Amino acid sequence: MTGRYAPGHTLDQAVALERGGENLVRGRTVDAWANMVGPFGGTTAATMLQAILKHPELHGDPLALTLNYAGPVAEGEFEIEVLPTRTNRSNQHWWLEMRQGDQVVTTATAITALRRETWSETEVGPPGVPAPEDLTPAAADRGVKWVDNYDMRFVTGALQSVEEGQTSPDSTTTMWIRDTPPRPLDHVALTAMCDSFFPRSFLRLGRPIPAGTVTLTIHYLATADEIAAQGTDFILGSVHAHRFHGNYHDESARLWSRDGTLLATSHQLMYFKS
Amino acid sequence: MTGRYAPGHTLDQAVALERGGENLVRGRTVDAWANMVGPFGGTTAATMLQAILKHPELHGDPLALTLNYAGPVAEGEFEIEVLPTRTNRSNQHWWLEMRQGDQVVTTATAITALRRETWSETEVGPPGVPAPEDLTPAAADRGVKWVDNYDMRFVTGALQSVEEGQTSPDSTTTMWIRDTPPRPLDHVALTAMCDSFFPRSFLRLGRPIPAGTVTLTIHYLATADEIAAQGTDFILGSVHAHRFHGNYHDESARLWSRDGTLLATSHQLMYFKS
Repeated sequence: MTGRYAPGHTLDQAVALERGGENLVRGRTVDAWANMVGPFGGTTAATMLQAILKHPELHGDPLALTLNYAGPVAEGEFEIEVLPTRTNRSNQHWWLEMRQGDQVVTTATAITALRRETWSETEVGPPGVPAPEDLTPAAADRGVKWVDNYDMRFVTGALQSVEEGQTSPDSTTTMWIRDTPPRPLDHVALTAMCDSFFPRSFLRLGRPIPAGTVTLTIHYLATADEIAAQGTDFILGSVHAHRFHGNYHDESARLWSRDGTLLATSHQLMYFKS
Repeated sequence: MTGRYAPGHTLDQAVALERGGENLVRGRTVDAWANMVGPFGGTTAATMLQAILKHPELHGDPLALTLNYAGPVAEGEFEIEVLPTRTNRSNQHWWLEMRQGDQVVTTATAITALRRETWSETEVGPPGVPAPEDLTPAAADRGVKWVDNYDMRFVTGALQSVEEGQTSPDSTTTMWIRDTPPRPLDHVALTAMCDSFFPRSFLRLGRPIPAGTVTLTIHYLATADEIAAQGTDFILGSVHAHRFHGNYHDESARLWSRDGTLLATSHQLMYFKS
């Protein structure tokens, strides 16, 4: 374990929200999480989730989140309208909209749920990989700031092959990831990590191309206690695409704890031009 | 090819909508698609998509749809509010809410998009399977009406093993499916098919248990012309779960054309009790 947990962690700064009304919160983008244009999409997703977690009527823990990136988020202030659309005994449905001025920049729906013990089984386990301690941390320098907030250790499909111009017959990247400086894992951090993989098109084509996420769905398959149990340890992520066609390709990711607990899956569609 | 295309197809009846305002349509459930409680979730998803397809401001073809089943849809009338939240040059973002009386029963977001030719590749091809003509149609009798609208031909993970009380170490079901009577494939029919797999928990446990979809995300990886090219042919679907835990499990499905074109993926979370 390197470093220590800082209370003013950049992730907590990025998702900091101020209440502006019963169903309205306000925040602002944080420079440390800047992407090529606007903030890293993972922090936008995490911020939307945070708006739910801080809502006074919250019932249950995050179960599913779908983010639609409607337009670029500009640096600066934003407001989020966050509304429970229906509250049932065992779950709650949410609708959210992030706005800047009169522009809708992001929409989302989510479900929070109470979880009880049931028959339990993980059918898709992690691939066999070296321990993160036996791998070299990836160089953070990608021309974007947000990657500095992660310690990423590539197992396969490293960004380096893109930098070296190597095409790849397979779009899979498998990597260990944790926040840097370390921060205990929670739903917010896990949400951001679900969007931390570089575009699969880069890996296949061996070069960066114009690309951006248009929609991201996260399924939280672990309970809150399982997520909290990770502390500041590395998480193993593996992502691949099914199909690239007509300006869009998908990406499916799975994120496991070191002991093989499947914490979440994420499925997204990316726009690309090539 | 058996039967012929009937203009009064039950699927078209299920998704029939009447305009009630600029962003409001009305419809009613159709008895032929009845599930245990209310209508088959696939027709609810297809009906929500239809509300977008019939909107006067529609821009592009379906790219992504996320449905949240907030509560049971009762037999009878419903209204759908359908709103373009942002229209960009190459895509459009949608928000939808299905209501019955003062109850929100389903919410959704969707993206429609213009597609242009780009580098194209399918990375995840279909499993090797027998032709549908070499397989026996599954018995439609499952105690629910909606399955009568499909000709399903199981390759692996057939419902029969559940009926025989056999547990399974793997949650995969692979099957051929088409509408019956035959109906040319379009986004509406494909959407309903994405939800046509019986719950993975049944297959694992070898018995039916209380289970229901709470959220469903469909990514349309094929363009409209590829979907139309299927005509009334069988589609190959394969579905599996990653994890069952704490009242919920996921399901990821892939749907290919007979010639191996990946038409769509769907990812859902199901509530279960066991």
